[in-house]
Amino acid sequence: MSQRIQTDTAGVFVIAATPFTDEGAVDYASIDSLTDFYLGHDIAGLTILGVMGEANKLSGEESLAVMRRFLARVDGRVKVVVGVSAPAFDPMVSLAAAAMDAGAAGVMIAPPPSVKHDEQFFNFFAGACAAVGPDTPVCLQDYPAVTGVHMSVPVFSRIVRELPQVVMLKAEDSPGLTKISRIRALEAKGQRRTSILVGNNGLFYPLELARGADGPMTGVAYPEMLVDVYQAMKAGDRDRADDLFEIYLPLVRYETQAGVALAWRKEILRRRGAIASARLRAPGAQLNADEQADLTRMMARIESKRAALG
Amino acid sequence: MSQRIQTDTAGVFVIAATPFTDEGAVDYASIDSLTDFYLGHDIAGLTILGVMGEANKLSGEESLAVMRRFLARVDGRVKVVVGVSAPAFDPMVSLAAAAMDAGAAGVMIAPPPSVKHDEQFFNFFAGACAAVGPDTPVCLQDYPAVTGVHMSVPVFSRIVRELPQVVMLKAEDSPGLTKISRIRALEAKGQRRTSILVGNNGLFYPLELARGADGPMTGVAYPEMLVDVYQAMKAGDRDRADDLFEIYLPLVRYETQAGVALAWRKEILRRRGAIASARLRAPGAQLNADEQADLTRMMARIESKRAALG
Amino acid sequence: MSQRIQTDTAGVFVIAATPFTDEGAVDYASIDSLTDFYLGHDIAGLTILGVMGEANKLSGEESLAVMRRFLARVDGRVKVVVGVSAPAFDPMVSLAAAAMDAGAAGVMIAPPPSVKHDEQFFNFFAGACAAVGPDTPVCLQDYPAVTGVHMSVPVFSRIVRELPQVVMLKAEDSPGLTKISRIRALEAKGQRRTSILVGNNGLFYPLELARGADGPMTGVAYPEMLVDVYQAMKAGDRDRADDLFEIYLPLVRYETQAGVALAWRKEILRRRGAIASARLRAPGAQLNADEQADLTRMMARIESKRAALG
Amino acid sequence: MSQRIQTDTAGVFVIAATPFTDEGAVDYASIDSLTDFYLGHDIAGLTILGVMGEANKLSGEESLAVMRRFLARVDGRVKVVVGVSAPAFDPMVSLAAAAMDAGAAGVMIAPPPSVKHDEQFFNFFAGACAAVGPDTPVCLQDYPAVTGVHMSVPVFSRIVRELPQVVMLKAEDSPGLTKISRIRALEAKGQRRTSILVGNNGLFYPLELARGADGPMTGVAYPEMLVDVYQAMKAGDRDRADDLFEIYLPLVRYETQAGVALAWRKEILRRRGAIASARLRAPGAQLNADEQADLTRMMARIESKRAALG
Repeated sequence: MSQRIQTDTAGVFVIAATPFTDEGAVDYASIDSLTDFYLGHDIAGLTILGVMGEANKLSGEESLAVMRRFLARVDGRVKVVVGVSAPAFDPMVSLAAAAMDAGAAGVMIAPPPSVKHDEQFFNFFAGACAAVGPDTPVCLQDYPAVTGVHMSVPVFSRIVRELPQVVMLKAEDSPGLTKISRIRALEAKGQRRTSILVGNNGLFYPLELARGADGPMTGVAYPEMLVDVYQAMKAGDRDRADDLFEIYLPLVRYETQAGVALAWRKEILRRRGAIASARLRAPGAQLNADEQADLTRMMARIESKRAALG
Repeated sequence: MSQRIQTDTAGVFVIAATPFTDEGAVDYASIDSLTDFYLGHDIAGLTILGVMGEANKLSGEESLAVMRRFLARVDGRVKVVVGVSAPAFDPMVSLAAAAMDAGAAGVMIAPPPSVKHDEQFFNFFAGACAAVGPDTPVCLQDYPAVTGVHMSVPVFSRIVRELPQVVMLKAEDSPGLTKISRIRALEAKGQRRTSILVGNNGLFYPLELARGADGPMTGVAYPEMLVDVYQAMKAGDRDRADDLFEIYLPLVRYETQAGVALAWRKEILRRRGAIASARLRAPGAQLNADEQADLTRMMARIESKRAALG
Repeated sequence: MSQRIQTDTAGVFVIAATPFTDEGAVDYASIDSLTDFYLGHDIAGLTILGVMGEANKLSGEESLAVMRRFLARVDGRVKVVVGVSAPAFDPMVSLAAAAMDAGAAGVMIAPPPSVKHDEQFFNFFAGACAAVGPDTPVCLQDYPAVTGVHMSVPVFSRIVRELPQVVMLKAEDSPGLTKISRIRALEAKGQRRTSILVGNNGLFYPLELARGADGPMTGVAYPEMLVDVYQAMKAGDRDRADDLFEIYLPLVRYETQAGVALAWRKEILRRRGAIASARLRAPGAQLNADEQADLTRMMARIESKRAALG
Repeated sequence: MSQRIQTDTAGVFVIAATPFTDEGAVDYASIDSLTDFYLGHDIAGLTILGVMGEANKLSGEESLAVMRRFLARVDGRVKVVVGVSAPAFDPMVSLAAAAMDAGAAGVMIAPPPSVKHDEQFFNFFAGACAAVGPDTPVCLQDYPAVTGVHMSVPVFSRIVRELPQVVMLKAEDSPGLTKISRIRALEAKGQRRTSILVGNNGLFYPLELARGADGPMTGVAYPEMLVDVYQAMKAGDRDRADDLFEIYLPLVRYETQAGVALAWRKEILRRRGAIASARLRAPGAQLNADEQADLTRMMARIESKRAALG
């Protein structure tokens, strides 16, 4: 398996949390156990140092150390995409270079809030691609709810045409289903293919696969849901895919609450034994007693419904 | 039953669409059939001329005519809240006065985007309350995803203290569960009670009832879901409430796609015979073939799962 | 003189305030005196019912009455552009039709905040042009600081190519000088010409004329500044244009304070005898004592410096 | 002179650029010459690593090295405030500690975009103050146009009451004059005093001094203007202050164009011999030929008018 992301990369990518100790230090042992937890499922890749990875709460040195620890533990078994979004090209380039040196499969870049229209959108990615160099495959993250930047289908077509190193789209616009369909329709008419992995916390996951997405890239703490739905869809069993997905949907829905989602996911990972502490670095939410109770109830319902479904 | 909303108003409020003909004219006959459809379920109230009612696509005369038609058809059987949000007080006042004259239970007001902090938030509502007059009960709409305005719990406490005519909160912040819990906790310590009805398309509905909300105020096109969940929660059967809710959750989830949600709801209402045309006034989305197919699939799954649950 | 705006329309357009009485009613007599005040200077046009005209604080009937009063008083002596921006096409169309019937020179349309990228930008204006009809000349207002919508130069070129009724650009992007230069450069290479009038409260006015703008369209309460600078630039005397402009620049600078600017301008118009009351409709600022003193000081400095310059 | 900022700190603070070579490396020799240039005027302080210092384009190591170079060159002659705003407390704390160790007078902190209302505003600063420790004096930066965060006067009063280490306000709200007046009025009634330095590129500078500000903190490349206006106001000669200020106002006005301002200021500093290269790190504007010509014209007018005024 090539360790680089490519235009036909498919399968389940999981966005990894960055574990901290209760005191707030990076917990390197938990990086190992978390990696093992994720790779215990049939995933195709990991994404690290994204928003979910609290990347902007790490110092430069910590970012490098976290990245290298993940890559060492993965040891080539799956592809690893590294988030390198930064307000300027200099810090982006140095992190990207270190990531590729350490064996990353590519980098993920989201546009900064200063990008306001199509021309600026294209120019930003042209500049970023030149900055990280043509040998670094790029996953373009289209997540307007977080970045405030909106990508039109025509400007993405221009990027596909002029920037060959953009091989993957992380699609998390909303509404976003028609966007996926439009891109696939353009490819049917000759536009160069890109891999499309879907985010948005997985809220529209099976619907997006039905529109032609190649897989998910999201951080839900139940990677088995992502994998099982993927395989059901590949097997053509959409009813089973929906039945599986809907078991987890109440929990996925809870994660649409920005500011709570990450604390929630880390707590699930902790309860499932994947990391030692659910701690977030400040400023960051900690679950209160009501939220812990909501979680306990939801996990129990998932367990019993999943057992019933088989 | 008092026809005014009060601090203890509870039950299911449905936000009504404004039906148009295929040519885009207001469809008054469909206002009647839609009202009948909603009142065919055990609801406590209707809300008209909200965002879902395409209020800002109506002329001043049309707004008045639509409002009067709904109120005439309801004929005092349930409470009717009228959305009167406007960029200035003059248009707000004249619509509010006409609504109360025609028998409305109160008015719903959201803050304009110019409100940027707590002091401006309070001042806006103090001004709006004075403008519509002390005899007009006010439902304060807290919907930052749409208005861009954020309400803190302390500023709401100040409003409760100083503006007695604010008797109801339409709670649709996200994350919003803890906000409801905090307000109820303050009431337990002596803060004057307010009715809390929850929106956010119903995405967190049973969770919000568990936190102390008095009911929903949202526009999902299955009012029976709102009513049945409400009654199950009142009966103390939370498992049944969740089981019921989760049947509809895939559809509710689809409606988080701003820009698609209203077209989607109108099409369901049309298919269910409540209105004659699913038409939106421009600019507004029309469902494409893929979205129609998504809807067909989801409605079928709802029907079979609901039949299975009983 | 044709009463329609055209691709070569040039000269000074003033944006008119809407005068109210101290009690908040529309002051029709002051519409007449204000029109006379503006037309006492050598202006080419008036713009009414813009943001400065508190258009969104008027009822539908008031908007029509205000528009007709202005048009009657102008009586064909200068062109009158009518702001018709609205959240939906239906209200836009009815106001536009009434305006053209009453003798307006064209309509001004700004994009709504829902427009997020080039494709949506073009589609909005294509829809709006179709809605108001091909015989209605359109001035496209590009004012991202107020609308939150950003227009790229390429999407404007597409509009120029495909929507012939867009004959005028109200240019108030910031930074905006290079945008004007780029459009003029494209015209030098064959792009169809548009009239470019500049806004932004006049903050960059002579610089914009030097880049090829055809005149200002702004609401500063000293129309003589707008006219004198325009004539100095036409006469090729840029030093005099700058000398004139800089006398008023402290005052123009004060008007960059959104929320204060309109109260400030109305107070100047009142002091200069153009309107009877400086009242704004609520919610709207009223000048406090410090601001009144700032204004008194600035007006005195303008008077003495203008007398010294000649 | 104490090297810490205090509640009565007054005088001119200049925000320093971070000089780069034409190739984009940090230009340490130019840090020295720039420091000498600024200290050649009668200033009270320097602010480094702000937005104007392109702080977010530096790596962690570069930030430390730039900070230490400035502090070494200043060598205790004026106070140095260090910008430490960061999306999380961990990186903020390590930079703040290094700055105070190296002799900084205090740190400047702006709220992150996640702060949406008064309670979150207070909580953020309470957390930040605790994080950097009680011995680190804090300058609170209130700059909504850049941060998107709005501070009410009441929440600032709460901060003054509960967080004694917040000794300075960088006031750059707009409109902002009344805010300064209100804070000073509260102090007259007993609220603890804070130093108020004004930013906003200096656009309202003499007006703000008249309202009670203690001086400017801004990056205009003519520190002599800041100093001379300050001294004229201290001498009670407001006419002279205005006459001086208005000479530079056309240039200051040009700098309201976000995205152009920094390139413009660096070019002036280069022309005046303070730094070797006007280069910005990417993405960042470079002045085009028209902008260079605008600058040449404006600098010449400043020179001749300043010579005439004396």
